[in-house]
Amino acid sequence: MTQIPESSYKMWGGRFSEGPHEALQSLNNSLPYDCRLYADDLDASKAYAEALHLGQRLHTGRSRNDQVVTDMKLWLRKAIRETLGRLSRIIETATRQAELHLGILMPGYTHLQRAQTVQFSHWLLSHAFALREDGQRLVELRDRANVLPLGSGALAGNPLAIDRLWLAERLGFSGVTANSMHAVGDRDFVVDFIYCCSLVSLHLSRLAEDLIIYSTKEFDFIKLADGFSSGSSLMPQKRNPDSLELIRGMAGVITANLTGIMMTIKGTPSTYNKDLQYDKQFCFQSFDKLTQVLEVTDGVLQTMQLKPESMEAALSTDMLATDWAYYLVKKGVPFRQAHHIIGRVVSEAEKRGEDITDLPLGELQTFSPLFGSDIVAVAGYSNNVEQYNAIGGTASSSIVEQLRLLKKFARELAKQS
Amino acid sequence: MTQIPESSYKMWGGRFSEGPHEALQSLNNSLPYDCRLYADDLDASKAYAEALHLGQRLHTGRSRNDQVVTDMKLWLRKAIRETLGRLSRIIETATRQAELHLGILMPGYTHLQRAQTVQFSHWLLSHAFALREDGQRLVELRDRANVLPLGSGALAGNPLAIDRLWLAERLGFSGVTANSMHAVGDRDFVVDFIYCCSLVSLHLSRLAEDLIIYSTKEFDFIKLADGFSSGSSLMPQKRNPDSLELIRGMAGVITANLTGIMMTIKGTPSTYNKDLQYDKQFCFQSFDKLTQVLEVTDGVLQTMQLKPESMEAALSTDMLATDWAYYLVKKGVPFRQAHHIIGRVVSEAEKRGEDITDLPLGELQTFSPLFGSDIVAVAGYSNNVEQYNAIGGTASSSIVEQLRLLKKFARELAKQS
Amino acid sequence: MTQIPESSYKMWGGRFSEGPHEALQSLNNSLPYDCRLYADDLDASKAYAEALHLGQRLHTGRSRNDQVVTDMKLWLRKAIRETLGRLSRIIETATRQAELHLGILMPGYTHLQRAQTVQFSHWLLSHAFALREDGQRLVELRDRANVLPLGSGALAGNPLAIDRLWLAERLGFSGVTANSMHAVGDRDFVVDFIYCCSLVSLHLSRLAEDLIIYSTKEFDFIKLADGFSSGSSLMPQKRNPDSLELIRGMAGVITANLTGIMMTIKGTPSTYNKDLQYDKQFCFQSFDKLTQVLEVTDGVLQTMQLKPESMEAALSTDMLATDWAYYLVKKGVPFRQAHHIIGRVVSEAEKRGEDITDLPLGELQTFSPLFGSDIVAVAGYSNNVEQYNAIGGTASSSIVEQLRLLKKFARELAKQS
Amino acid sequence: MTQIPESSYKMWGGRFSEGPHEALQSLNNSLPYDCRLYADDLDASKAYAEALHLGQRLHTGRSRNDQVVTDMKLWLRKAIRETLGRLSRIIETATRQAELHLGILMPGYTHLQRAQTVQFSHWLLSHAFALREDGQRLVELRDRANVLPLGSGALAGNPLAIDRLWLAERLGFSGVTANSMHAVGDRDFVVDFIYCCSLVSLHLSRLAEDLIIYSTKEFDFIKLADGFSSGSSLMPQKRNPDSLELIRGMAGVITANLTGIMMTIKGTPSTYNKDLQYDKQFCFQSFDKLTQVLEVTDGVLQTMQLKPESMEAALSTDMLATDWAYYLVKKGVPFRQAHHIIGRVVSEAEKRGEDITDLPLGELQTFSPLFGSDIVAVAGYSNNVEQYNAIGGTASSSIVEQLRLLKKFARELAKQS
Repeated sequence: MTQIPESSYKMWGGRFSEGPHEALQSLNNSLPYDCRLYADDLDASKAYAEALHLGQRLHTGRSRNDQVVTDMKLWLRKAIRETLGRLSRIIETATRQAELHLGILMPGYTHLQRAQTVQFSHWLLSHAFALREDGQRLVELRDRANVLPLGSGALAGNPLAIDRLWLAERLGFSGVTANSMHAVGDRDFVVDFIYCCSLVSLHLSRLAEDLIIYSTKEFDFIKLADGFSSGSSLMPQKRNPDSLELIRGMAGVITANLTGIMMTIKGTPSTYNKDLQYDKQFCFQSFDKLTQVLEVTDGVLQTMQLKPESMEAALSTDMLATDWAYYLVKKGVPFRQAHHIIGRVVSEAEKRGEDITDLPLGELQTFSPLFGSDIVAVAGYSNNVEQYNAIGGTASSSIVEQLRLLKKFARELAKQS
Repeated sequence: MTQIPESSYKMWGGRFSEGPHEALQSLNNSLPYDCRLYADDLDASKAYAEALHLGQRLHTGRSRNDQVVTDMKLWLRKAIRETLGRLSRIIETATRQAELHLGILMPGYTHLQRAQTVQFSHWLLSHAFALREDGQRLVELRDRANVLPLGSGALAGNPLAIDRLWLAERLGFSGVTANSMHAVGDRDFVVDFIYCCSLVSLHLSRLAEDLIIYSTKEFDFIKLADGFSSGSSLMPQKRNPDSLELIRGMAGVITANLTGIMMTIKGTPSTYNKDLQYDKQFCFQSFDKLTQVLEVTDGVLQTMQLKPESMEAALSTDMLATDWAYYLVKKGVPFRQAHHIIGRVVSEAEKRGEDITDLPLGELQTFSPLFGSDIVAVAGYSNNVEQYNAIGGTASSSIVEQLRLLKKFARELAKQS
Repeated sequence: MTQIPESSYKMWGGRFSEGPHEALQSLNNSLPYDCRLYADDLDASKAYAEALHLGQRLHTGRSRNDQVVTDMKLWLRKAIRETLGRLSRIIETATRQAELHLGILMPGYTHLQRAQTVQFSHWLLSHAFALREDGQRLVELRDRANVLPLGSGALAGNPLAIDRLWLAERLGFSGVTANSMHAVGDRDFVVDFIYCCSLVSLHLSRLAEDLIIYSTKEFDFIKLADGFSSGSSLMPQKRNPDSLELIRGMAGVITANLTGIMMTIKGTPSTYNKDLQYDKQFCFQSFDKLTQVLEVTDGVLQTMQLKPESMEAALSTDMLATDWAYYLVKKGVPFRQAHHIIGRVVSEAEKRGEDITDLPLGELQTFSPLFGSDIVAVAGYSNNVEQYNAIGGTASSSIVEQLRLLKKFARELAKQS
Repeated sequence: MTQIPESSYKMWGGRFSEGPHEALQSLNNSLPYDCRLYADDLDASKAYAEALHLGQRLHTGRSRNDQVVTDMKLWLRKAIRETLGRLSRIIETATRQAELHLGILMPGYTHLQRAQTVQFSHWLLSHAFALREDGQRLVELRDRANVLPLGSGALAGNPLAIDRLWLAERLGFSGVTANSMHAVGDRDFVVDFIYCCSLVSLHLSRLAEDLIIYSTKEFDFIKLADGFSSGSSLMPQKRNPDSLELIRGMAGVITANLTGIMMTIKGTPSTYNKDLQYDKQFCFQSFDKLTQVLEVTDGVLQTMQLKPESMEAALSTDMLATDWAYYLVKKGVPFRQAHHIIGRVVSEAEKRGEDITDLPLGELQTFSPLFGSDIVAVAGYSNNVEQYNAIGGTASSSIVEQLRLLKKFARELAKQS
């Protein structure tokens, strides 16, 4: 532990004539962080005592340096397990909603401009896939970090013939750290974890941004449940997406911890320096805050109400343009030329204030003689969506495959968590 | 205030059929931050009620949006005042120590390599001048931000003929914000404050780095007081500069808040969004942590013990090289050529394992016939230091002037705090 | 300058038996940055030579340390002047557009939800006021940083009786730095400048976000000029707001430079260390990138086309709710109670799928007997807007005052740039 | 590619009446970045044309969105391979130096205070182990990211029955992305890479800090080669560790790119937005700068000269304190008590200005009667070092095992690079 209990001070007292100054004690107080490691510390201490064959000599050969880093690794395993559980629950919620609403169409946006028709489920799962990779990252981190630092002492190692491999097995580690000077000053596993949390929070910020925009009066694709909305003290008609804004903003809070721990570590001499003590506040805050936003995200997705009629009303015929270009391509027109022809068709319709589907065939044929009556086959949104059936596309068959992949992944994660 | 008390929920209840979900309540809980604004909120509310001429209608025309930003500005004024006080105390401590130890010489370092002889006081004051500019920044911020946002409503302004100029005067502001949509979404004064805190913490990190190095056994220029040192649980002989490492590392913690608030604000739509609520945790943490390290820094400087004999022992004759080059310059040698000649003298002495002052005059004259017996005049460290008497230099006269400037500044700061 | 020309290497050659390794030369190459300081370096060198009364001994008593920091300060003055000019041009463009479109109404948003009716000009000027404060920050920085470091030497000062006050006046500085060890290692003025650039870029990111949303098909308040839009290689109908997205994203690029320079400086020993050389790439990139986005922002604002009919179509009667609450307040109902009554009115109208203005008076009187036929006076958007005539509000009289303030400021900035 | 060639503009020209404004062209110019992807773009385009069975229709069904992200993934594979090669070379250099200097003792530091005696090789390898984990991270990233996005179109997928699995195999990917909307807006693999680069740079900053301190005159453990040092324009005697300072500072530059890309992505709507274009400058700069510092680091380690006599001279007898405590422990004294006894011994020796080994046995026995003449067995540094023979310790046997692990790893990395 990193606070300075009186017993420690008395211990150094062999050489120190006075205890820590009040201002230093206040700055140095890590009790709020240390208390979160008590259970882990007990586990590690018990194992170490067994390895020494004498509970009483617990402090022999062990330093706060290798002790604290061991406690943190034990804590991290649990934190990763819990986070994997929360990620899998959101993925399950997303797949359930996507399955339930299969077939509902909406505009797909790039640059926040209507681009092509997609399925609502396709959009929702795009966010789930980002979280799937977050899960993979955490699993890889857990495995990579799972080596025991205990037995590294203050920095030089352990002179008491302690069996580190036995200790590792006893505490569920897959191996031991290979260099004691590296082990006591290494916080990479904490940085890695905060990085993973930051990336999850970035993904959630993009989901939140989409949902904030989709629940404006102007888009009106989504209605947030009352329980995830707030009102206004001044404006009686307001329904504010506070939950989503708090999710979006949290990316700044968590990523700040990443910047912070990296800046704190930068340029410190090797092995242990007291600066490293700040790892705990960066790490615990990242975990706590991520936990909160994961819970809220799950709740939002579970309770939000879709407005399929608004989504479909937002499909405009200019979004058929790409499909019409493909129509010409299939008749032998090179794509660039087809793209140009359809661009002119869209422009003409815009000028007239009409939809491209309102232009009579004869008119269309002035742009290209290859337009025929079969153009009606690509004038419907649902038909067109089903053409995008390559792996990953927005056709129903493709989405069903995506659902299968995600369910399998969520099951695996849930098993590990 | 930003929490959602039941009364608020009931207030919106005209339209909401259920209250906030437990997960959102947990995420949205800003009570630990809001309670720090209670006194400010009372002040602003009292003034607003007076402006309305009816305590009962306190909520009329006021929104949480303009209320919270007003409270934050009132809080900021106090936070700046306190921080100015702490900065002025450190500057006073530094000037006192510098005055006390005038005349003590040490190596001045660039690139952490011995460069030229300087006075210890010169080095110490170099850090005080960085803090002086921090004080200037805070004073400018205080004056720039001191305009009242109250009366901006939720975003559109106030329709109740409220006298904002009267309100501003009543609450000690120098003016009012000029555009209500800007006022409710503006957190620049918070970002500015966190930036100022970050810069102070950067300065302290450099001071701490110097002192950590100076208190190694190898440099041994400084002995930290027991009250600002820690021992080791494993190594009985250790005296660790934990206080300084905690100061150095805090730059990462505080600067992280700056990154965090900027990232949180980035790309949000204008006016108020809930993401802005995180401003308080970034701001309060920056202030609290800075307060702690300022207190510890002051304590360290007050209690540290100098080791002048070690400092002087670290002066080596190769550090006279620049002065010897000037010696030749004064005899008419162009500087580049003089630099080259002395470089060769140093190299020769290095090869022999001797000091340059050990080389006999005859030997020196093989490098340049202009060497004469008057070279002894620039062979003493104290003499040489006094030559650097241009403004800002390390001569005693120059340092006395620096002390005068800093004392004047500290007095002014103390008056304002 | 910070590159290592052969002459320098030969100069040290008195002691060095070989030149810099190729890999170090590549890492150390600052030529692309240094060349931007040539003009400033010439100015400073000329003045220094005059102060020495001998051009030939230019290198006497001057170090690269005080030379480079002087060059940077000279460069900064010009960079600030140019940036002030660009800020004033955008403010002028905004005021011109706001003046031209006075009286056009649109929904004002908080939380991206329609809140109250505001004038388009009020919204546009809210962004101009953020930039006005950026201008103030830059002016304060310019004045605070305008002290001459030349004459600080490598770290100890200058022993050649040079008149630093004369030098300062000659180069247009308002004073001289007070401590040479501080002066050669101080890059705060660079950090300050990058901070100011970051804050401008944050403001532009919020403006860009607003405009991206306003130019969606769903909002449709704004049409970007062709010259500031891009098309799609695949989708012929697309008109993408690339210009605005590049502005929004640039906040990440410039703020990264702020994080970078602070992290680079953190924990370095005092005076000069080579790490500080990176200040130039952080600084020049921030300036260059900000220049680009300021130019594009000005162009976007100058050429964008308003769609007032879409804006007014987006005004919905539920946005009258606050005004209706004030209506009851003026008849003696406490605000909280009025808020609650109107909340229930809005809810009832929602349930019926009607506007609140569609509810017959008799119906309204079931919610409160105080409703009377004079409710029609607050049932029109234009009337209501004009009630918000406290300073900073959205009434025309208030906006005219805002225009006056901004024009005055832009004129002052333009004079200084 | 992301620039706007005239052909593109003409292509959209179906609808656009004018080309991009000069200011936008300047901001949008990504040519310096795009040209680095030409080779990758050719590879991907060739494969896509084969999949279409018609070179002429290359643009059919492909969007810049899936094209650019595919090019970046191809580029990344090469960048990772090269970086692994550079990491393995540094690890080889470190193992070679460690092997060569086995048996050389130095003080091991914690908190930059002398702690316990360690081998120089143990210290050097502690840095190599940090880089080993960086290699592991990059290998995991390479495998995780190696799925093909091509065939995702603009966002909806591909309607041309293209065989994405064939394409993936043809281009050396292990699979295909599973959701097209996710694929076109996903830059996580770029963020991951920049993160890995940042972490390497952090490790190098700590190594550089150690070496900067070790090459001060006061420590004097290391002499940098001339080729990795610089002189001073003013001070003829200076030898500056510029190379190491540039390495240390680079951590700020590269980590800034991480902050930058995360801030840029934060809160953007899903799928492709132009903000993402900045990924390339963040990524390429991180790679380029890391490449430079890896080369310089390798050069520094290869050419630096050890000063074993200075290292051994820095071993002071108070560093035996922990071993003396263990001496008492082995005689049955509980560790805490032994620690306290030795603390008092150290304090007593300090007071007398003597070494603890100078205290006569009789004197020692006044602190504990268990001191005996066998205390001489733990009064030698070499003996004591060999006691730390648990895995990871500083005993020679342990270091030999560390060398074996690192050589094996470097061979594996080299094979993959």
